[in-house]
Amino acid sequence: MKQLILVRHGESEWNKLNLFTGWTDVDLTEAGRKEAYESGKLLKAEGYRPTLCFTSYLKRAVKTLNEILDAMNMDYLPVEKSWRLNEKSYGAIQGLNKADTAAKYGDEQVLLWRRSFDTQPPALDMHDERSPRMDARYDEIPDNEIPLTESLKDTIARLLPYYRGTILPAFENHDQILVVAHGNSLRGIVKELKGMSNEEIIKFNLPTAVPYVFEFDENMQLVNDHMLGDPEVIAAKMQSVANQAKKK
Amino acid sequence: MKQLILVRHGESEWNKLNLFTGWTDVDLTEAGRKEAYESGKLLKAEGYRPTLCFTSYLKRAVKTLNEILDAMNMDYLPVEKSWRLNEKSYGAIQGLNKADTAAKYGDEQVLLWRRSFDTQPPALDMHDERSPRMDARYDEIPDNEIPLTESLKDTIARLLPYYRGTILPAFENHDQILVVAHGNSLRGIVKELKGMSNEEIIKFNLPTAVPYVFEFDENMQLVNDHMLGDPEVIAAKMQSVANQAKKK
Repeated sequence: MKQLILVRHGESEWNKLNLFTGWTDVDLTEAGRKEAYESGKLLKAEGYRPTLCFTSYLKRAVKTLNEILDAMNMDYLPVEKSWRLNEKSYGAIQGLNKADTAAKYGDEQVLLWRRSFDTQPPALDMHDERSPRMDARYDEIPDNEIPLTESLKDTIARLLPYYRGTILPAFENHDQILVVAHGNSLRGIVKELKGMSNEEIIKFNLPTAVPYVFEFDENMQLVNDHMLGDPEVIAAKMQSVANQAKKK
Repeated sequence: MKQLILVRHGESEWNKLNLFTGWTDVDLTEAGRKEAYESGKLLKAEGYRPTLCFTSYLKRAVKTLNEILDAMNMDYLPVEKSWRLNEKSYGAIQGLNKADTAAKYGDEQVLLWRRSFDTQPPALDMHDERSPRMDARYDEIPDNEIPLTESLKDTIARLLPYYRGTILPAFENHDQILVVAHGNSLRGIVKELKGMSNEEIIKFNLPTAVPYVFEFDENMQLVNDHMLGDPEVIAAKMQSVANQAKKK
């Protein structure tokens, strides 16, 4: 049996401050580090043994993965990193307070930027200090592909070539693969795997630091998916993420 | 100019307990984590920007690298891990107290195991619970190559194919490469680069968590090597490592 394990990073500094984060490279909070470590302990206790890991170029995902590997005593595992697993870009509203942004642009507009499938927030200028073009780590991305803002649709469109072209083919040599990334990049994988509609995926809130396991038969057909851990804790975490979306 | 940066991992739990460690996968102490983070801050302050990293399969080296990348805000860098960068195997004396071992086998014998170039400590049984054959991470190593004990000579012999075949060729696509590993595996690289004799290398003590920079011309000829940081701190650290070797 082949298994794909998805984990959304733990709480970040800007989650706590209620700022739009996107591609900003903010750190985990101490609580975020701990929930990451706990999810590694859970994976270990349930006997999971991945042999390959993927993560994004953002510190909060890389460090969540590091904590998981530490808890599993599997620090030696190979890890591949890609900008295509990064969070959705929030463009020019990155770094702004969510409440201030709602006051300035109106609740309805901000809700569209945050929760519609295909509305983009205002774009960053290519030379804005927050632009990924100003950051050497993204030198590999050509100008015409560099995300200066993204809708969820855009995020999924730049994720899928990596998921289909790199992650899925790795199952030829691996039975169990771990992907640690972000709410919206992981939505792309979940949408693809479960055949969700655009409306379904925007309502789906992946809880932080909860391992979500997908199981495949020998033809890589999905046969089962389930989250690990106490169902009450998972439900509370999903509700908390959904509330976060409503919070001003 | 091409640059190779070597860093020996920070203090580990068993350094502190004065136990033979070798391939045992022990964690960093809090002091070890901090000295690793400081070495990353130093690299950043001096303007170093590696684009590729290598480390071993052992937690104390991986976590030292993670701390360095965190301090440099370069968590996104690609990292390649190899068992060939692991510490020298101390065979059947792994996990034993250094003082107890000296009392049992005599000071002279233990000094040979620790500080001669080509004397191996007693070998582990292939099925000893401490044997790397019992650890899935080493499944890739065939039985006839799996180290059940090693002299420094053996350590260097299994390191060099990786250094010459993987690390050095990576300079074709990278100007600056960071290697975080162990006292004895890094001795192999230093011996090779500086053309040291067997006698010279056993007297050379790399300080923990001090970046050691080698600079090459366009023909990959070594033109300069120097350690980063306060010379007094470096001298004190080298003396401390040398004393550790004498300590019972």
